[in-house]
Amino acid sequence: MRKLFLITASFIVAAASFAQKEDSIMIRRISDEVLTNGKAYDNLRYLTKQIGGRLAGSPGMVKAEKWGFKTMSESGADKTWLQECMVPHWVRGGKDEVKTIFTGKGAAIPKTLDVIALGNSMGSGSKGVKAEVLLVNSFNDLEEKKDQVKGKIVFYNYKFNPTYVTTFLSYRDAGQYRGQGPSRAAKYGALAVIVRSMSHSTDNNPHTGATRYDSLYEKIPAVAIGLRDADWLDLNLQKGKVMVQLKTNGHFLPDTIGHNVIGELKGTEFPDEIITIGGHLDSWDNCEGAHDDGAGSVQTMEVLRALKAVGYQPKRTIRFVLFANEENGLRGGIKYAEEAKAKNEKHIFAIESDAGGFTPRGLGFTVSDEQFKKVLGWKELIAPYGCSEFTKGGGGADIGPLNKELGTPMGSLNPDTQRYFDIHHSRNDVFEAVNKRELELGAVNMAALIYLIDKYGL
Amino acid sequence: MRKLFLITASFIVAAASFAQKEDSIMIRRISDEVLTNGKAYDNLRYLTKQIGGRLAGSPGMVKAEKWGFKTMSESGADKTWLQECMVPHWVRGGKDEVKTIFTGKGAAIPKTLDVIALGNSMGSGSKGVKAEVLLVNSFNDLEEKKDQVKGKIVFYNYKFNPTYVTTFLSYRDAGQYRGQGPSRAAKYGALAVIVRSMSHSTDNNPHTGATRYDSLYEKIPAVAIGLRDADWLDLNLQKGKVMVQLKTNGHFLPDTIGHNVIGELKGTEFPDEIITIGGHLDSWDNCEGAHDDGAGSVQTMEVLRALKAVGYQPKRTIRFVLFANEENGLRGGIKYAEEAKAKNEKHIFAIESDAGGFTPRGLGFTVSDEQFKKVLGWKELIAPYGCSEFTKGGGGADIGPLNKELGTPMGSLNPDTQRYFDIHHSRNDVFEAVNKRELELGAVNMAALIYLIDKYGL
Repeated sequence: MRKLFLITASFIVAAASFAQKEDSIMIRRISDEVLTNGKAYDNLRYLTKQIGGRLAGSPGMVKAEKWGFKTMSESGADKTWLQECMVPHWVRGGKDEVKTIFTGKGAAIPKTLDVIALGNSMGSGSKGVKAEVLLVNSFNDLEEKKDQVKGKIVFYNYKFNPTYVTTFLSYRDAGQYRGQGPSRAAKYGALAVIVRSMSHSTDNNPHTGATRYDSLYEKIPAVAIGLRDADWLDLNLQKGKVMVQLKTNGHFLPDTIGHNVIGELKGTEFPDEIITIGGHLDSWDNCEGAHDDGAGSVQTMEVLRALKAVGYQPKRTIRFVLFANEENGLRGGIKYAEEAKAKNEKHIFAIESDAGGFTPRGLGFTVSDEQFKKVLGWKELIAPYGCSEFTKGGGGADIGPLNKELGTPMGSLNPDTQRYFDIHHSRNDVFEAVNKRELELGAVNMAALIYLIDKYGL
Repeated sequence: MRKLFLITASFIVAAASFAQKEDSIMIRRISDEVLTNGKAYDNLRYLTKQIGGRLAGSPGMVKAEKWGFKTMSESGADKTWLQECMVPHWVRGGKDEVKTIFTGKGAAIPKTLDVIALGNSMGSGSKGVKAEVLLVNSFNDLEEKKDQVKGKIVFYNYKFNPTYVTTFLSYRDAGQYRGQGPSRAAKYGALAVIVRSMSHSTDNNPHTGATRYDSLYEKIPAVAIGLRDADWLDLNLQKGKVMVQLKTNGHFLPDTIGHNVIGELKGTEFPDEIITIGGHLDSWDNCEGAHDDGAGSVQTMEVLRALKAVGYQPKRTIRFVLFANEENGLRGGIKYAEEAKAKNEKHIFAIESDAGGFTPRGLGFTVSDEQFKKVLGWKELIAPYGCSEFTKGGGGADIGPLNKELGTPMGSLNPDTQRYFDIHHSRNDVFEAVNKRELELGAVNMAALIYLIDKYGL
């Protein structure tokens, strides 16, 4: 009996070891394919240099969808389609301007600040807003100064915290000033808002991103300024009064039609079980959207291309999705989940790459404890390609609705975060900031995970 | 008895846990200090922009030593000194040139290639070398073509292997063509050598680096060309004959005096036990030496500055060393070990940062199994700052002699490797390629390790 047990145990160990080896070989083949014949970098060059900025509703996004459909098909999808959804149509409407027109005694020479209106923000009107600036260092500080706010332009100079090693923690911390800042200032009668950019950069580029007005208060204009100008303004406000003339032109046109671009590899054994991998195709209008999220888009199609190139036939159905509207509405992600729910689809896992095309470090998982234990068992297979940090917690804005509506387990590719907020939503989020191999390795690591989940389930 | 045992066990666990917490707090303080008040980035700006290239023996290196001495003192060393050593004095001697002067029927228009002479290589003489190019893809290929080599210029077009995830493996693989290529071609009568640059870059910058002549054969001129020119040359050689006119001017002047810059914090409990941390101050002449190894130099001084800033008083003696001559002679590292041996110093550990100022990923260790087990016990304390990959094997060129001569256990900071060979030894190894936080986090991780080794020994 004991002998039989030992024989059985040996057999199981041998079988497991054989499977492990087979998986290791397959992942190596995928990696070699991507690092040798990868198309992600060239695809990203086209998307950024030939198409460029592509906010939902813009001509750029229409071009990007056409390109995405063609590139998805060429990457080897069994079937490619456009999933229609209504998207918001915010336009910047012209050049954003902030000029200091008077600074107190002994203050620096007036100057034009380098600014950009926050996404979804309302323009100032053609006359602009001319008012004194009130320096506010935090929401607590705002509450303390609430009686001084009326008729002023509130300048939130909240610093991006340098002590968090993971820069997304600094973003979560400071991001509330961009999101809630305008309405919280409007509550006390502010005429407009200037926010310090959410960035660790050493340059002066301003960083945009969506703001969210609270419908209770007036929708006042809001801009971001770069870090050097923020420090300059701070300094001058400590010396004396600073008046500024602010002009922005943002407004919404009626909602329009956008599309998620979806490619599919049909499962051979369990076609009804769906695995989704995606990034978002839209970007802000002030940049090429190379890291955010051209990277995730081309990585998604590279995973498809590589799986086909190595001849892998998935057991389950794999969907490759370029989402329509992450930046200022999330309508693409919502639509994808709605349709999945309406059709009663069985989604077993979804992963998103939307943290930049930087060198991969880890994979994050919003899954059950049991599922996490299972993915941890694959760590040794994936770690040699960069993702050696497997952590609980992870997902993405676009796949969030799938998780929320259908309870789909989700994950994220976690690239290194140090450089991300240097370029995020600013004019230097361009192709040149992306490294070819870092981008490719992101695709390799996601492909490896998708392969394992497809083969073994989750 | 059992109760006593339990109480004792609890006490030990509690004490260990208390120590762990104390260490965690200290490392956090060091990290906050570096990420908030760090001087590494500004120091690197000065070194690269005000001093620039600094090959051993050059005026740049003399300036760098003076700056290093001053900056080391200002960073808080108890004592700073210059350790004299003789260094080689190779000079480029002028502009390196390679012009294609004839290409076969149907070939592209002749052009000037973007080249750089290999470090330590001998110039062609004022007339230059004019000869036909022989394409060779590997040393095996060279052996097969050995009868065709005489009177030709051998072009080693060996590709940097894209499938290694760690780019240093590709470098080790391809690097032999730069090191041994000239002499192996000279053996069969080649007049000069052109090597494909050791790089994954997407640009055409040529990458230099030291070659090593075999004294048995003639010291023929040798240059590197960028990847685009290499592909162009390859293509044209497949179409027909290509003649080139090659001119280089490299030569050695008599050895001259260089210095290691050494700063020290004297140990309070075990002053005779020495821990060394260093980088090399010299760089190639064709760049600013920002990543290689300005980064390691300023990180070394940042560790010193941060330990002082948080008020840490080391038990053991910590030496901070800017080595004099890593690139083309290693005389600084050799001198440091020689003097340590002559003085019978007890060196318990040495670590070097010489793999670029990129985001830290791991620490490598050339230590005993028992010591490795000990450092593995510290992984959870260091991993939150980036170095989550602890591996066997590690060290650095400059601390190698210390390991060899005194058996000193050694380690290396292992930053991400993807971007390193895009810029290594080429004109784009400049300040702008370094990210402030990535550079700083390298210092944080080394400081954490040094702190733990100092506190607990190794």
